[in-house]
Amino acid sequence: MFMLVLITALVSGCQVFSATDKAPGPDAMANSVMGTGDLGLVIERATGSVLVINTTNRSVLHRIEGLGDLSHASVVYSRDARYGFVFGRDGGLTKVDLLTQSIVGRVIQSGNSIGGAISQDGRYVAVSNYEPGGVKVFDSTTLDLVADIPATYTKANGEKGQSKTVGLVDAPGNRFVFSLFDAGQIWVLDMPDDVAGSQPELTRFEAGKAPYDSMITPDGRHYIAGLFGEDGLSMLDLWDTDAGVVEILPGYGRGEQPLPVYKMPHLEGWTVADGRAFIPAVGHHQVLVADMNDWSLVEKIPVQGQPVFVMASPDNRNIWVSFAHPKNDVIQVIDSRTRKVIRTLEPGKSVLHMEFTPRGEEVWVSSRDSNRVTVYNTRTLEPVAELDAQSPSGIFFTSRAHKLGL
Amino acid sequence: MFMLVLITALVSGCQVFSATDKAPGPDAMANSVMGTGDLGLVIERATGSVLVINTTNRSVLHRIEGLGDLSHASVVYSRDARYGFVFGRDGGLTKVDLLTQSIVGRVIQSGNSIGGAISQDGRYVAVSNYEPGGVKVFDSTTLDLVADIPATYTKANGEKGQSKTVGLVDAPGNRFVFSLFDAGQIWVLDMPDDVAGSQPELTRFEAGKAPYDSMITPDGRHYIAGLFGEDGLSMLDLWDTDAGVVEILPGYGRGEQPLPVYKMPHLEGWTVADGRAFIPAVGHHQVLVADMNDWSLVEKIPVQGQPVFVMASPDNRNIWVSFAHPKNDVIQVIDSRTRKVIRTLEPGKSVLHMEFTPRGEEVWVSSRDSNRVTVYNTRTLEPVAELDAQSPSGIFFTSRAHKLGL
Repeated sequence: MFMLVLITALVSGCQVFSATDKAPGPDAMANSVMGTGDLGLVIERATGSVLVINTTNRSVLHRIEGLGDLSHASVVYSRDARYGFVFGRDGGLTKVDLLTQSIVGRVIQSGNSIGGAISQDGRYVAVSNYEPGGVKVFDSTTLDLVADIPATYTKANGEKGQSKTVGLVDAPGNRFVFSLFDAGQIWVLDMPDDVAGSQPELTRFEAGKAPYDSMITPDGRHYIAGLFGEDGLSMLDLWDTDAGVVEILPGYGRGEQPLPVYKMPHLEGWTVADGRAFIPAVGHHQVLVADMNDWSLVEKIPVQGQPVFVMASPDNRNIWVSFAHPKNDVIQVIDSRTRKVIRTLEPGKSVLHMEFTPRGEEVWVSSRDSNRVTVYNTRTLEPVAELDAQSPSGIFFTSRAHKLGL
Repeated sequence: MFMLVLITALVSGCQVFSATDKAPGPDAMANSVMGTGDLGLVIERATGSVLVINTTNRSVLHRIEGLGDLSHASVVYSRDARYGFVFGRDGGLTKVDLLTQSIVGRVIQSGNSIGGAISQDGRYVAVSNYEPGGVKVFDSTTLDLVADIPATYTKANGEKGQSKTVGLVDAPGNRFVFSLFDAGQIWVLDMPDDVAGSQPELTRFEAGKAPYDSMITPDGRHYIAGLFGEDGLSMLDLWDTDAGVVEILPGYGRGEQPLPVYKMPHLEGWTVADGRAFIPAVGHHQVLVADMNDWSLVEKIPVQGQPVFVMASPDNRNIWVSFAHPKNDVIQVIDSRTRKVIRTLEPGKSVLHMEFTPRGEEVWVSSRDSNRVTVYNTRTLEPVAELDAQSPSGIFFTSRAHKLGL
């Protein structure tokens, strides 16, 4: 049913590039002496490039090119907050050095991939693949392949297949958790840590029909998968895996008056504030509020379009919401206490993503079709800076290095 | 009743040192090209020195000397995670560069101080003073004095005095919050941000008798002060300051069978996990558990001594507890779900502090009288490394740069 291959040398089928588009000389070296706590990457999806940015100066340090297809790309960071691992849509895994602003490693590890994660101890980077399916795990220092999990399952007709994997996250205990779209399962991959003799271990759970995305709560305890094939969500409590997967929010995905779903909400765009989960409704102009004690639906907040990302500011004071096409030129801000929309902002055309500075004084918002990133003060809700970017999508700050489940 | 002095140039009475104990040359420059996300400082209290450490290699990079009296010292970090601001007991505020491992600024800003904080936007560093009392605020880049708040109050005999200040923390909205021990008040200092024309503002609240220390919840909402002068604690909800200060946990500090209090617990050593606050009991061999919804006491967990620090691992799975003299050679680990002690560890003599790596895979523990720091794996609860240090006390990792209220 599954095959776990532990590989210590690089296997064939992976292309490795030693890119040296910017070899650092003495001057560059001096320019590279800087803290990495206020840096980040902005994805330029159409041009296969990323911007290295600084959140203190609100400036662009450099553009790095040659990262392939970056539609739907995401980034995780090494534990020293120096290196970003960029997951491209074309199966490319690119390691970027934010200090020298150059590509220091690149692997085409599959034909089509959808995000990844870095282990709690920073030693492993895992990638979730559509084609040919499965998950590959790499050494974060060398990008050598460490483990290949094909995600093999048996189809209804008895044939073997490799499942598309989605919703790959890291979890405490040096684990990765991901969902198998085709197999309807959730798998937990327990990676070895420094304890002598420990080996990767895989545990599988039945998870319902066609999980399409997942999130994990900030403490790394509850892994929640959205389902295409049925209403409701599947939840695995990683503190009590013996209980298996349970269904929560049974009406989620249904709704009384179905609307066209322009874009499935990102579950990673869920947020937790004050013991409540704020969740984008599927196909409705609503943000749902669930009580995390029993995961019951307690409120529906009306908003101006179909929400995509629903994100709390780091102080949990406000919830910022982005929207699906065609109503995606605005951001709405919800007061987490009154649970009412308090402001509608217009950063530009086709707002795709937003990222809070680590302590929440500002938030960066990307407007793809306006070719800009707008920075807002979270107290005044007024713009304080604009940066040029080519079709910007995801924004990822290095403070993610220190968070579980991102 | 209070005087707020806004100062743009450096005032007299502050000594400034331009320390150049290690001028970086070309080689040092190359050695200084590194990420700062996995660095930290260990206070060596007896020798006025700090160790720059790396949590990935579990190594000491360098010892920096000349920081004065570091008993009870603490550290906050610049938002780029490059500079540590070390608050000494002798009124010394020292700015340390973790990349060049040198002192880059030092001010003796009072006769006796007790901790400090950095503003949400990273522009201001504030220090809490015993002698002559009050709070001073410095520019984090230059260490120029920006604001002087003497904390003046009227004594019972009608004379004016300056209050000792304690429990200084940063809060969202670029605010500092602190308690006046002598005046029995909590003050909120709202620092200007980039919004044109904004000025510092001060708001005062009556807080009960003799607040001795404080903490703020991780979201920066609830500021809680412990009181020497009465039982119970004072809480200010920063989302609703109109409500003023309210009393919570009315029995806290009392107890049926009083024991000698060897060391007042650090309220900054409180922890929040799963909607519950885990709190060191005063003078009792107990960790108290409070329901954060109504701040009522729900449980008392027996432990082996008087707890000092009560800290949840970043995944909230376990609570680690350190103890007061004379039972301070051990750490106890509590399962946050069963709320039972699951392990007693013996890191060395006189355990003073502990710090979790940002994503919680390891925890560093200082044993002052064994001259060592022990690193534990949080999954196995087994030691994985030991580092030599001279009478180590506080351990502070750069990931604090990204957290509110530290």
